[in-house]
Amino acid sequence: MLKDFEKKKKEDKVALSAEIKELRAKLLGQQQQLLKAGLPVIVLIEGWAAAGKGSLIKELISEIDPRFYRVYSSAILPEKDERYPFLYPYFNAIPENGKITFMDAGWMENTVQKFLRHEITKAEYTRRVRQVNEFERQLHNSGYLVLKIFLHIGKKEQFERLRALAEAPETEWRVNREDLWQHKEYKRFTEAYDRFMKQTEDTVSWHILDGSRRKTAVRDSMQLLTDMIEGGLQEGRFVGEPYEEKFHLRKMEKLSDIDLSPSIEDEEYKKELKRLQTRLSELHNIIYRKKIPVILCYEGWDAAGKGGNIRRIAYPLDPRGFDVHPIASPLPHELHRQFLWRFWTRLPRTGHICIFDRTWYGRVMVERLEGFCSENDWKRAYNEINEFERMLTDWGAVVLKFWIHIDQETQLARFTERQNTPEKQWKITDEDWRNREKWDQYEVAVDEMLSKTSTDHAPWYIIESNDKKYARIKTLKIVVKALEKACAKHFEQIME
Amino acid sequence: MLKDFEKKKKEDKVALSAEIKELRAKLLGQQQQLLKAGLPVIVLIEGWAAAGKGSLIKELISEIDPRFYRVYSSAILPEKDERYPFLYPYFNAIPENGKITFMDAGWMENTVQKFLRHEITKAEYTRRVRQVNEFERQLHNSGYLVLKIFLHIGKKEQFERLRALAEAPETEWRVNREDLWQHKEYKRFTEAYDRFMKQTEDTVSWHILDGSRRKTAVRDSMQLLTDMIEGGLQEGRFVGEPYEEKFHLRKMEKLSDIDLSPSIEDEEYKKELKRLQTRLSELHNIIYRKKIPVILCYEGWDAAGKGGNIRRIAYPLDPRGFDVHPIASPLPHELHRQFLWRFWTRLPRTGHICIFDRTWYGRVMVERLEGFCSENDWKRAYNEINEFERMLTDWGAVVLKFWIHIDQETQLARFTERQNTPEKQWKITDEDWRNREKWDQYEVAVDEMLSKTSTDHAPWYIIESNDKKYARIKTLKIVVKALEKACAKHFEQIME
Repeated sequence: MLKDFEKKKKEDKVALSAEIKELRAKLLGQQQQLLKAGLPVIVLIEGWAAAGKGSLIKELISEIDPRFYRVYSSAILPEKDERYPFLYPYFNAIPENGKITFMDAGWMENTVQKFLRHEITKAEYTRRVRQVNEFERQLHNSGYLVLKIFLHIGKKEQFERLRALAEAPETEWRVNREDLWQHKEYKRFTEAYDRFMKQTEDTVSWHILDGSRRKTAVRDSMQLLTDMIEGGLQEGRFVGEPYEEKFHLRKMEKLSDIDLSPSIEDEEYKKELKRLQTRLSELHNIIYRKKIPVILCYEGWDAAGKGGNIRRIAYPLDPRGFDVHPIASPLPHELHRQFLWRFWTRLPRTGHICIFDRTWYGRVMVERLEGFCSENDWKRAYNEINEFERMLTDWGAVVLKFWIHIDQETQLARFTERQNTPEKQWKITDEDWRNREKWDQYEVAVDEMLSKTSTDHAPWYIIESNDKKYARIKTLKIVVKALEKACAKHFEQIME
Repeated sequence: MLKDFEKKKKEDKVALSAEIKELRAKLLGQQQQLLKAGLPVIVLIEGWAAAGKGSLIKELISEIDPRFYRVYSSAILPEKDERYPFLYPYFNAIPENGKITFMDAGWMENTVQKFLRHEITKAEYTRRVRQVNEFERQLHNSGYLVLKIFLHIGKKEQFERLRALAEAPETEWRVNREDLWQHKEYKRFTEAYDRFMKQTEDTVSWHILDGSRRKTAVRDSMQLLTDMIEGGLQEGRFVGEPYEEKFHLRKMEKLSDIDLSPSIEDEEYKKELKRLQTRLSELHNIIYRKKIPVILCYEGWDAAGKGGNIRRIAYPLDPRGFDVHPIASPLPHELHRQFLWRFWTRLPRTGHICIFDRTWYGRVMVERLEGFCSENDWKRAYNEINEFERMLTDWGAVVLKFWIHIDQETQLARFTERQNTPEKQWKITDEDWRNREKWDQYEVAVDEMLSKTSTDHAPWYIIESNDKKYARIKTLKIVVKALEKACAKHFEQIME
């Protein structure tokens, strides 16, 4: 009987190796189909310390052409990423269409570990869980294939593995204090991992694999991966439908109801400009020291005066502490990723001010009107943007959005003046004239955008800019007021 | 008399303000011409602590459209950049064509400060001086307009300014220990700044401005900047000529003399592969702990077997500690910067291994043959590349370069096989066939490249790859040997 048992065991092992070989070949074949279909894939491997996450990834990638994947390890991310929002490193790491990102631990470990160490509050934990579900849903809805694996080992197994690593001189350095602490707190971690997994299955389910049986884990994860890819290839790229989340929205006036007559006297303008810029400069110092990130978003009609408005804000700021990001059409590598990626990668560090000259709202304006994305894409974007901005304010950012508003006559006058002034001609292009012809369509889109995305956490302000000077003072006042409020309440917020 | 003096002083002040206003308008006008001419501009502002570098930059940018410039402050770079080569943050920050980068302190402060603090050795100081001259020459030769300003204040003036900053509660935090230490060591700093400036004028001269006369400094720097831009616009984009530096070059065989018959038996291959991969895996651990960066460069004929060769190197490595960068044609924002920029931005951190699947040598192969750059550009590139690689090895990196070599018959056989095997068809494109027709031209270019860039610090290895297995083993052996050597001598090197 024992002999039979041994024989069976050996046969199983051979069968397992054969299966792995077959799956590997399958994955190799899928690689080019993925590229052709433009499907992006994310594989998140979480699990216990010493469970073998690294070696599992090594097996998964062993036959894939290096041009088609990247491996990210969250173990080495934190140092530089602590000054960005929680999801920043993961959003940064998403692959472009047709490629695969493997994550060696990620948003789960970052959250559970920090929570158990009391480095984040319960409220922050809850926010992160919500953010993770939003993140995964956003990726899923824009066609990403996401696989989440948890590699599990028992407490005894972990002890043996950590000991083996710690006792060999060449691997000793791999065992760090966090690992030992995790082992000591094995039970608490079990509960915390369990809870986190239950809380983060809104869109993408977890797969728990047995890390103590290495080959089986390799086979199973390859099976899961190739099945997922196969499904994705058969069904074609998924496009999520619009969904409703109940954000509390501020009531916005329709553009056509806006009174554009407000103006300001020259003397008053100079006085106010000086006063507000001096105050802004002081506030920038406080913002910097308190490490409050600030994000100012500019949208508006062509020739509405965005540039000059931005310059008046920027002038009193310390150039070391702010950035202006002019947003043009996406570059190829940006176009081939979820639409918010190119904004995630441009976020400021804590304590810095970042001004976006045009923003992610292009999605629901130009991309909507020019058909650069599907109807579902732009309809879904209102909520995706509200969620994105909530992630920013959850992080402690001040987010203000300005619609710089003028009427059609004023635009025509400014276009004509640009046309006729040699040093301003670069500012006016054929596209501006084309956009102008679509004024009415844009107005519908802008009204919808303002009404659907003016949340309490990231409100819109309509800035009457027929008189540019009036517009600059109004914007400065709003910025100054918001920063004063943020400086005052920041302490409460972080202790929440 | 005193009355006249006062009157004159007042008149001068008014005249100065008028001059600044005029220069500002000029700069505003130049901005669009710069863009049209595609001229990139770098303005480096160095100087004493509290000399007013930040406010000077603020004045310089006040009227420029934020789309056309970026400000970089080296004060905030170091934290994340310490694990990269010295010039990494500055090379990263170079503007694309038509735009301006302002640097608030940079390679000078980083070098002088560190040297006086004994954070870098004398040998490292000397290397940095050489690197700075190379860096500035490379930028100049590829058409960058570079302006270097040193903002000078006397010791007394610095004392007053630091005291004023330190005594006001809202600016107190701006005065840090480095500033106070600099003030205490004013004399040593004077000598060190002086020496550094004398040593780094090979291509770009320094301009010393008086920081104690704020308005004059603004006027003078604006004058310098607008003059430089005007000159650049008149003369058109500068293209540097090839230049000779005497690198010690290894004698390379001509490709046509290479014996491609070497091969390896299957059993021997398996045994050697296992042995070498095991050793490489151990070495990766040591490399990681010793923080030695490793850069492996792959070039070779289409279908020579680069991909499979790279996979055999990558397989034993910990995926958390290496990256493979497949290099395709440059994206627009890469094309609009000095040609090495897209490689600088992809460098590994210390302790990491980075494999380039095709490299910066595209400049002297495809870009040369297809006319994607001027003759001067590719002829200059041999030296620019040798310098670049020396910067990497100066930093402590191991740099190895492999030419994966096959003959034309073997390529034809592999092309045909790819064509006829459905799952390999993606690997063969029309371009491959077109390149094949240019085999002879490529061979001339490759021979020239090998003979001009096989330096002692970054040697080329020709890998016979008619038998892919032989090629893999040979490459692995070279990598293992080089890493063993690096691990052994690393300590001596850093203590040099």
